[in-house]
Amino acid sequence: MLNKSLPNGLRKASLGAVTAVTVSIISITSSPVMAGTGVSWKDLQNDHKTTDDVLMYGLGLKAQRHSSLNQINSKNVGKLRPKWSFSFGDEKQRGQEGQALIHDGVIYMTASYSRMFALDAKTGKKLWQYTARLPEDIRPCCDVVNRGAAIYGDKVFMGLLDASVVALNKKTGEVVWKEKFGDHTAGYTMTGAPFIVKDKKTGKVMLIHGSSGDEFGVVGKLFARDVDTGKELWMRPFVEGHMGKLNGADSTTTGNPKAPSWPDGDYKGTGKVEAWSHGGGAPWQTATFDEETNTIVIGTGNPAPWNTWKRTGPDKDPRNWDSLYTSGQAYIEPSTGELVGFFQHTPNDAWDYSGNNEIILFEYKDPKSGKMVKAGAHADRNGFLFITDREKLAKRGVKEANKPTSLLKVWPFVPSITWAKGWDLKTGRPIVDFDQYPPEPAPGEKQGKKIQVTPNFLGGKNWNPMSYHPDTGLFYIPSNHWSEDYWTENVTYKKGAAYLGQGFRIHKQFDDHIGSLKAMDPLTGKTIWEHREKLPLWAGTLTTKGNLVFTGTSDGYVKAFNAKNGKELWSFQTGSGVVSVPVTWEMDGKQYIGIGSGYGGAVPLWGGDVADLTKPVSQGGSFWVFEIPKEVAAVESGKEVAAK
Amino acid sequence: MLNKSLPNGLRKASLGAVTAVTVSIISITSSPVMAGTGVSWKDLQNDHKTTDDVLMYGLGLKAQRHSSLNQINSKNVGKLRPKWSFSFGDEKQRGQEGQALIHDGVIYMTASYSRMFALDAKTGKKLWQYTARLPEDIRPCCDVVNRGAAIYGDKVFMGLLDASVVALNKKTGEVVWKEKFGDHTAGYTMTGAPFIVKDKKTGKVMLIHGSSGDEFGVVGKLFARDVDTGKELWMRPFVEGHMGKLNGADSTTTGNPKAPSWPDGDYKGTGKVEAWSHGGGAPWQTATFDEETNTIVIGTGNPAPWNTWKRTGPDKDPRNWDSLYTSGQAYIEPSTGELVGFFQHTPNDAWDYSGNNEIILFEYKDPKSGKMVKAGAHADRNGFLFITDREKLAKRGVKEANKPTSLLKVWPFVPSITWAKGWDLKTGRPIVDFDQYPPEPAPGEKQGKKIQVTPNFLGGKNWNPMSYHPDTGLFYIPSNHWSEDYWTENVTYKKGAAYLGQGFRIHKQFDDHIGSLKAMDPLTGKTIWEHREKLPLWAGTLTTKGNLVFTGTSDGYVKAFNAKNGKELWSFQTGSGVVSVPVTWEMDGKQYIGIGSGYGGAVPLWGGDVADLTKPVSQGGSFWVFEIPKEVAAVESGKEVAAK
Repeated sequence: MLNKSLPNGLRKASLGAVTAVTVSIISITSSPVMAGTGVSWKDLQNDHKTTDDVLMYGLGLKAQRHSSLNQINSKNVGKLRPKWSFSFGDEKQRGQEGQALIHDGVIYMTASYSRMFALDAKTGKKLWQYTARLPEDIRPCCDVVNRGAAIYGDKVFMGLLDASVVALNKKTGEVVWKEKFGDHTAGYTMTGAPFIVKDKKTGKVMLIHGSSGDEFGVVGKLFARDVDTGKELWMRPFVEGHMGKLNGADSTTTGNPKAPSWPDGDYKGTGKVEAWSHGGGAPWQTATFDEETNTIVIGTGNPAPWNTWKRTGPDKDPRNWDSLYTSGQAYIEPSTGELVGFFQHTPNDAWDYSGNNEIILFEYKDPKSGKMVKAGAHADRNGFLFITDREKLAKRGVKEANKPTSLLKVWPFVPSITWAKGWDLKTGRPIVDFDQYPPEPAPGEKQGKKIQVTPNFLGGKNWNPMSYHPDTGLFYIPSNHWSEDYWTENVTYKKGAAYLGQGFRIHKQFDDHIGSLKAMDPLTGKTIWEHREKLPLWAGTLTTKGNLVFTGTSDGYVKAFNAKNGKELWSFQTGSGVVSVPVTWEMDGKQYIGIGSGYGGAVPLWGGDVADLTKPVSQGGSFWVFEIPKEVAAVESGKEVAAK
Repeated sequence: MLNKSLPNGLRKASLGAVTAVTVSIISITSSPVMAGTGVSWKDLQNDHKTTDDVLMYGLGLKAQRHSSLNQINSKNVGKLRPKWSFSFGDEKQRGQEGQALIHDGVIYMTASYSRMFALDAKTGKKLWQYTARLPEDIRPCCDVVNRGAAIYGDKVFMGLLDASVVALNKKTGEVVWKEKFGDHTAGYTMTGAPFIVKDKKTGKVMLIHGSSGDEFGVVGKLFARDVDTGKELWMRPFVEGHMGKLNGADSTTTGNPKAPSWPDGDYKGTGKVEAWSHGGGAPWQTATFDEETNTIVIGTGNPAPWNTWKRTGPDKDPRNWDSLYTSGQAYIEPSTGELVGFFQHTPNDAWDYSGNNEIILFEYKDPKSGKMVKAGAHADRNGFLFITDREKLAKRGVKEANKPTSLLKVWPFVPSITWAKGWDLKTGRPIVDFDQYPPEPAPGEKQGKKIQVTPNFLGGKNWNPMSYHPDTGLFYIPSNHWSEDYWTENVTYKKGAAYLGQGFRIHKQFDDHIGSLKAMDPLTGKTIWEHREKLPLWAGTLTTKGNLVFTGTSDGYVKAFNAKNGKELWSFQTGSGVVSVPVTWEMDGKQYIGIGSGYGGAVPLWGGDVADLTKPVSQGGSFWVFEIPKEVAAVESGKEVAAK
């Protein structure tokens, strides 16, 4: 069904677009960064190496979430204690899912309801606060969270719940520019941290950010913006056959303009089914950047509606209708926004698995050939850990966008996955259990037959990022073991209304735990160790050279584990559930840990029986900094110790 | 003008009432306290001595707020660090003014919006939570705060913002009884901690609590209730000539039934001015109990309206119209609720100084006679520290209720007091500067001439309790140095509307500070040391045998000071302003400090220029427990230290 002539046409469009970008670079050019205060591209390139700052979501372009600091280590982490705490205030609580950035002794932390705080890293004193004025009719599917900021030059950037992105003066918090990218009454919103990328070809530094809103039937889009003005450079939609933008004009369709992976139909003269016009695929998490191949890597969201049958053709076999380019990992050329590679984690995703989770870039030595492999690692909501060849994905171009010869390894990381019996490495496709497509309602019924699916739609792992430890070669995956009852319902698109066509009730899979922090070997798929939690894990992770893994728990603890053996070495109760992402940095020769506390996110809103389990968890909203107290040294002296 | 025959009549009524109470005791009797879990009267009597619990607001019947614990002391307090924190949650923040109670390893902490939390003292785990369902039309003047609970038997007790008081099962948080004592739409409310008293005469254990609401023209009332059923035993109003209650029937008027301290008039057939019917005097803070004389001691609130001239007779001299029994300290007989003694801190209070601040009971050796004096200490909003003879006050009876031969000492504790030039110890009355009564509006004007008054109506010290240290013999007063512009306005009582008749703008008195923590000698009036804060002090204090004074600051710190010399030895930033009251206790042989954090209270609502100063302070809502980490001992070992 593929239109064989298309790729050539696309290539021509791309080339034209590149020229246009090159021209525009000359007139725009980045503003000079002020010495001593600004953040340069070089600073971002080195973020994974420098220890006195945290400049990127993911702690580096590759998002490995690893720090080379080892002052706090598995020998002394038990002595870690709070240095200060800061309350976000405003009588606003809900989920705090942010990851802090740290630069020049200032912490930039985003908080619920589209707020950002600049705090003195030494004292916790608030330097400034930005609070977006949000309209009443925003439609965040999964709580009013924000996951973090980007920083470049003299600005910090964040997404807002009203589907806009804002650049703030990092000294004052004043708005430099603000750009609305979607209709929030249609469900467009933004919760993910934006990301800075420098295009190798043009030298252009740009802000990359996506949209959220798949549950409302948006078409998911990735944007590149001029960092100085906010002007859109390009836009890439992730429903096959939808038109991209470049410098304000139509650029190319994503994939085949005829969108053969979506059924034909008669919806509003499109020649396609209704779902195609509202097909989801929103890239709502944060990109990574493969500098070597000059490629942006990002996960794409679930197709809309959830109901498979609305996206399946007359043959009634969902396996023939992939709903491209949803629920997969996309490789994007930064000059033009062209899709140059794609691997789909869940073809025709019938379970809202989405494909958004972070793709961590890493390298490993192939045990057979001895060659270094440049890989991407992605732990999907569908329960599988994918190791992909990022060079192949970046180089193959859109022609092979869904021909995943780039799949290196695939490992289940949660038990008793039901939707697929495994993976066919030759075709690169899952061996789906056909009975796991929630069946259509029988004639005259409003609901289809209930089936049980594992993992449930919140996933074997959700947004909360895993991390990599270069010393152990392991990934530390904050996973969850849980199931759901699933059934279809009829659905018709209505602007601003939920567009699911599916009902669900999440429940426990095991009596004694849901959360499972795992150390997994990406080459063997072996779980080296596992730590279980009664409540779901919804916080990100951090690894350090000190042989440590840090994360938070829904019942309020920040915890540290021995990276090698998983022993829990330290915990501190922060008073509200921890669903944010830890960072570490060095200041005046001393290492600190920083993390937000404040329960919320998707679980208490969508979690069914599990939401009930989390009801005793208090809401909150605070940022915490931990240190090993220096007063320790004065313990035995018996002298009066002043704290100043 | 006094009705000379009245006291005899009152005595008769009292005796009759005592009989009635004695009878009711037989039928009601207290429920047996469960061994090991219940709190007995003996436990409360010993609260100031026992170190493993905190059973009373004030840490004992005398409310000295002193602990004999000295494990944490001026030598090692610098090592104090958080052990855990708890978030009150519920997307409710505002001021957290509570003092925790601690019994059997459980912390009972009240929070904003009439909530109580039972927390595991070791881990911070929530055992239960009580949240009052409040009507929309409550009228708290000064934020939705709650200052604490009382505990007795198997119950904990707290006041609610809808003018009711509730008893909860201390194991489960279930409501045992709930009694409404006033019309919340008229402004009645309750924010103070109730207090347990055992009447020596009858053996009856009773819950003593007051009402709030003077700013809305309520008549302030003190209540005694049966601890098991909540049934009202007696009620005592604090506007002269108003009728009390005993066992459901009218008992006696408070003072002279003709209320000569209030002008006559023609308001609704009362024969008195309007103000008399809405005269204030609400006893909204917590009582203390003088066991030796079997007397309840409590401060009474400001007269209503604030406007002096509405409470002044045709002679236009406010000094002749005292507005009894407002703005003073009241001594109450617990069997009958009779007023047996009274000393007025601010006769005809024209400045909303109120008289509510705690009256701490203490003893000192008279330097001349060498005799032990049983005294009360009260630092009033009017800027003066009063030392009164509590034996005289309890014994004189109502006949001498406002004949303050019981005044021992009076010392100014804030600088440049303007409203009074000093105190006449012979008459027991202030030497008021007549020009400091804000003048009436000139004919045709809506406002009177603005005058400047020091201290302002929030006071040299507000509700936040001072403490006493028996070793130093000093009082530790969390005071504030500030002034106001003050002017009169016309006012007529309207149910549920503010009843002030006065306008104001609070401003700074000094450029560099407002808060001033002072160690004052009650016998000499000397300030031994002073610590200043930029923002107002609005937290209570605690002294310990470890030569320490603990308190919190509006900019978020918990602090410890050397009790002898005032040196700041330790501080920790909690992230929101601290306006609560610290406690300390011992658990498994280790000392802990507990305190709430969460900014709010009267200052940000009423504070004018000073409210603006506090705008950068974040709201919050959390409870903190501090300890000296035991990991300290393992510091140099280099061994891996597990936190469990």
